[in-house]
Amino acid sequence: MDEKNISGAVIKRLPRYFRYLGELRDEGVERISSGDLSVLMKVTASQIRQDLNQFGGFGQQGYGYNVSHLYDEIGKILGLHKKHNLILIGAGNLGQALANYVNFEKRGFIIKGIFDKNEKIHGKLIRDIPISPMEEMESFMKNNDIDIAVLTIPKTEAVKVAGMLVRCGIKGIWNFAHVDLNVPDNIVVKNEHLSESLMELSYNLNRSVSDKKTGG
Amino acid sequence: MDEKNISGAVIKRLPRYFRYLGELRDEGVERISSGDLSVLMKVTASQIRQDLNQFGGFGQQGYGYNVSHLYDEIGKILGLHKKHNLILIGAGNLGQALANYVNFEKRGFIIKGIFDKNEKIHGKLIRDIPISPMEEMESFMKNNDIDIAVLTIPKTEAVKVAGMLVRCGIKGIWNFAHVDLNVPDNIVVKNEHLSESLMELSYNLNRSVSDKKTGG
Repeated sequence: MDEKNISGAVIKRLPRYFRYLGELRDEGVERISSGDLSVLMKVTASQIRQDLNQFGGFGQQGYGYNVSHLYDEIGKILGLHKKHNLILIGAGNLGQALANYVNFEKRGFIIKGIFDKNEKIHGKLIRDIPISPMEEMESFMKNNDIDIAVLTIPKTEAVKVAGMLVRCGIKGIWNFAHVDLNVPDNIVVKNEHLSESLMELSYNLNRSVSDKKTGG
Repeated sequence: MDEKNISGAVIKRLPRYFRYLGELRDEGVERISSGDLSVLMKVTASQIRQDLNQFGGFGQQGYGYNVSHLYDEIGKILGLHKKHNLILIGAGNLGQALANYVNFEKRGFIIKGIFDKNEKIHGKLIRDIPISPMEEMESFMKNNDIDIAVLTIPKTEAVKVAGMLVRCGIKGIWNFAHVDLNVPDNIVVKNEHLSESLMELSYNLNRSVSDKKTGG
């Protein structure tokens, strides 16, 4: 399977395929044609075929896709067959929301440690994980084979903490702080800038209102 | 200014320009060349020029961009010069995290009401806004000129609630429920599927490890 030149757009669509296939599998559906999947997912059948062909193609002419097999294969492509150990940095509302989200664990993303600089909440448990002082992060990472850090701290602190994470050998950062982290290229950063999403929504709202006004 | 054919990719980049320009403005910087902005934002100067030219271009040869002016103009393009009235549906951890995020308000996104079906938390205040029963949502929307709803509820409920919102005349939905909402085309939906983001991170982590193994 040659995955060398998969575009970012296709990668962004894979989790959605994975979700629909998982739901179909849970409903007991064994196979589906690209046409039926197209109706369900509201994308064209040709896009589905094109996307999945990038990974070697899993469909058979006249049969369609084997739901369970395709689900498993996309899961593997997404790296979901492996366990990932996470730490969460910042135990405010957002951090707690993420820590309490059990679906991450179902997908193999296991939160091992939670850190916060606020000493008032040290020792407090979130899903049986105690909130620990930042000072313990480095040794914790060494002893727990952590590969992903979730940053839910203010942007003023995020840059410094990202530097610490890099020194501790982090592989991926899921960054909710509203700042671009300056880390080496071999570290995978996925930014989650929620206020920028809201601006995008606002843009489209604005456009759709002016379209109506101009009849466009 | 002809905004008819702005690509989604450019729109996604606009909030980031807005953020950098806001920071420069706050630091007292009056003007910046596309070259300097390029170094700061780690994108090519030609991309910056190309992106901003789509909106008519704000730069002057030999002068660069007027920071404050460009910031204001991008804000207008993003619709941030207008106030948006929001309701939040679902006052769990994530809902509370969003409700407490003051920066949304600074950008003109004003949370007017919070709704949850859990009667145990009705009347509880989040930033002075009481959590209200779902049954009050419809009349509240009519009386408060609500244009955006933030959905932070489980996916099993989101589809039904989205239907209610449509009947009440909602214009935009910021959807954190892990499901695709089936709403008319004139309603702007921005999905925030956090677990899919995490899968994308996992994919890239997986790739970067196998790249290293194969020396690719």
